[in-house]
Amino acid sequence: MIPARLSLVTLGAVDLPRLRSFYEALGWVPRPGSNDEFTSFLLGGVLLALYPRTLLQAEAAPELAPPPPGTWNGVTLAMNVDTREQVDEVFALAVKAGAAAVAPPQDRDWGGCSAYFADPEDNRWEIAWAPWVRFSEAGAVVDF
Amino acid sequence: MIPARLSLVTLGAVDLPRLRSFYEALGWVPRPGSNDEFTSFLLGGVLLALYPRTLLQAEAAPELAPPPPGTWNGVTLAMNVDTREQVDEVFALAVKAGAAAVAPPQDRDWGGCSAYFADPEDNRWEIAWAPWVRFSEAGAVVDF
Repeated sequence: MIPARLSLVTLGAVDLPRLRSFYEALGWVPRPGSNDEFTSFLLGGVLLALYPRTLLQAEAAPELAPPPPGTWNGVTLAMNVDTREQVDEVFALAVKAGAAAVAPPQDRDWGGCSAYFADPEDNRWEIAWAPWVRFSEAGAVVDF
Repeated sequence: MIPARLSLVTLGAVDLPRLRSFYEALGWVPRPGSNDEFTSFLLGGVLLALYPRTLLQAEAAPELAPPPPGTWNGVTLAMNVDTREQVDEVFALAVKAGAAAVAPPQDRDWGGCSAYFADPEDNRWEIAWAPWVRFSEAGAVVDF
């Protein structure tokens, strides 16, 4: 049986210390043992990891071309918040902490609202409010 | 305060029905309401979503070039398992279900072991065993 688990999302970092500083500026605290070669954050029920891009590609995608600069990676990461007001609040805080504003908070046709920002290596984050999502006390998604 | 949450990882799908079929073949069950425009799976404490790539880019990365075919996206997703033996077992099951084998199970210098496979759109998945990771009953990461 293949477990239905997503435990770790790893971003291949071009400049890991800079990327870590950005996430720390959001107020996120690296897990013990984090350093310039590997940094992780526990985000609800899943880990976000930063690992040097060249090392990550050597083990995960040795036969593909590396990601070209200036292109989107085809992936978005979302942090869901508990109220509509929090989308505005968290977007403003993220931009203040150094995130690049991509799309301001707006109503979405799926029934909630969301905004997008980019980290310094152009990874895209959505700040989303979807009223039907349920979370554990630790912030893990328990129902959707 | 910016919540330390990663709630949803969305893959911009070129061929969403095909990609969904692949994940269903792993034994994963789409959440109610999934369809050809949006499909989601609850994977431990986080959602994996599939959304058409062009629509996702329009909202998340309108100013960047689209991901070029044949390039790696710079990201890996990991499912952590509970025993070393499960890495072999899950890797074999994934390949049998249609995953492309990228790297067979092997010991890693971080102290565990892992393997990599690719989905039909070249997203990279690691099957990892790291004995110190702790999970909730639902499969969310609770400590690392």
